[in-house]
Amino acid sequence: MTYCVGLLLNEGIVCLSDTRTNAGLDNISIYKKMFIFEKPGERVISIMTAGSLSVTQTTIARLDEAMTDSEATGETSIMLAPTMLQVAQIIGRTLSETSQEVASRMAGTKTNASASMIVAGQRKGGDMRMFLIYPQGNFIEATSDTPYLQIGEHKYGKPILDRVVTPETSLQDATKAVLLSMDSTIRSNLSVGMPLDLVVIDKDACRVTKERRIEPDDEVFAEMSKSWSTALRDAFQGIEI
Amino acid sequence: MTYCVGLLLNEGIVCLSDTRTNAGLDNISIYKKMFIFEKPGERVISIMTAGSLSVTQTTIARLDEAMTDSEATGETSIMLAPTMLQVAQIIGRTLSETSQEVASRMAGTKTNASASMIVAGQRKGGDMRMFLIYPQGNFIEATSDTPYLQIGEHKYGKPILDRVVTPETSLQDATKAVLLSMDSTIRSNLSVGMPLDLVVIDKDACRVTKERRIEPDDEVFAEMSKSWSTALRDAFQGIEI
Repeated sequence: MTYCVGLLLNEGIVCLSDTRTNAGLDNISIYKKMFIFEKPGERVISIMTAGSLSVTQTTIARLDEAMTDSEATGETSIMLAPTMLQVAQIIGRTLSETSQEVASRMAGTKTNASASMIVAGQRKGGDMRMFLIYPQGNFIEATSDTPYLQIGEHKYGKPILDRVVTPETSLQDATKAVLLSMDSTIRSNLSVGMPLDLVVIDKDACRVTKERRIEPDDEVFAEMSKSWSTALRDAFQGIEI
Repeated sequence: MTYCVGLLLNEGIVCLSDTRTNAGLDNISIYKKMFIFEKPGERVISIMTAGSLSVTQTTIARLDEAMTDSEATGETSIMLAPTMLQVAQIIGRTLSETSQEVASRMAGTKTNASASMIVAGQRKGGDMRMFLIYPQGNFIEATSDTPYLQIGEHKYGKPILDRVVTPETSLQDATKAVLLSMDSTIRSNLSVGMPLDLVVIDKDACRVTKERRIEPDDEVFAEMSKSWSTALRDAFQGIEI
């Protein structure tokens, strides 16, 4: 399983992903699920992935290959595409083609070979945008009504986002919100796990402004997790019925 | 969808269910999902249901019929069964038979006809026990390690239970915990809805000691929900990262 969450706010973008993958229940590994493509000051794209690892790795490898191709164009390379919408379309098409190829090889087995992605970023002169790309390649976009997108095990971490995140939320509070959302998810679903990858992209910077890997022994995260548990229990005690 | 939760604590049992049912997305109704069978002082059984309404209604009707049958025995009637384990077995068998009958009529359609139940109660001289009965009739039991069981849309309301509920939790706090768990679920999933049915069974009373229907305009519930939102936001603001 996986949990990835992206927030699209007035001040910028915050992305957080876990790194746990499993093939069956007894084969657990750590794989990065967040991929950054940037030309600082010009364009920054963050891609988070959930689903079949063979599909997501191949999709990312193909996107990478397409952008280093000597004949790359705005229709094939996400670093040259003229808009973020077209970036999403290229990723959607690549994901869909890869899924279909892998699925056709899987025909007859019961193995699932689908994947979804969150794509967030900005190009110079354009707006920040964030998309959730479905296995079939179609997508939806984050808006001011719902300024966040999630893939993977999304339910445990949704209530906190629903309660505290609006487009006006500061990047500092947004970082706290996604970490607490992840904390609730890790606590309830063992197949979501540390380390975590956190990325913050300030509006109009067109570059990653903060990038951090949070290891299992991270003291700040552990302290936050503990404080949140205590605060929740205190809040619970304070409620009267 | 549905959300039902049962807590098995040292001081007693707390059960809470919603009442929303839907056939498709555009046919929403209110149906009771909590059924109490009691002979006060001798035996009390609370059954909560999730899944296909035709399966759950027929199962409850058959259990009811079996216990009013003039030839009812400890092997057919949940009011005569010598232990709570045998109560669970009778319910499991009835549920499984009903599911199979309905499913065989549904063969060829894509309609799902399964259901699950939480059964909690106590008979005089026995222990309080609580079971989650699967569609196939097998079941698991709540223990002191995991003193709660959930059916239906369980994920949104699980984090609060994980953080505050232990076997030592008082019935007052337990009532608060299930109501807040339901509040988070209703907030995130429209197909879980008011009114709610709440039942508290004190240990060794062998009767329902508190029963309450919480209507959509219930002021105490609304106030609790609001206080919890405020408390969560305050707790969130108090966390430092």
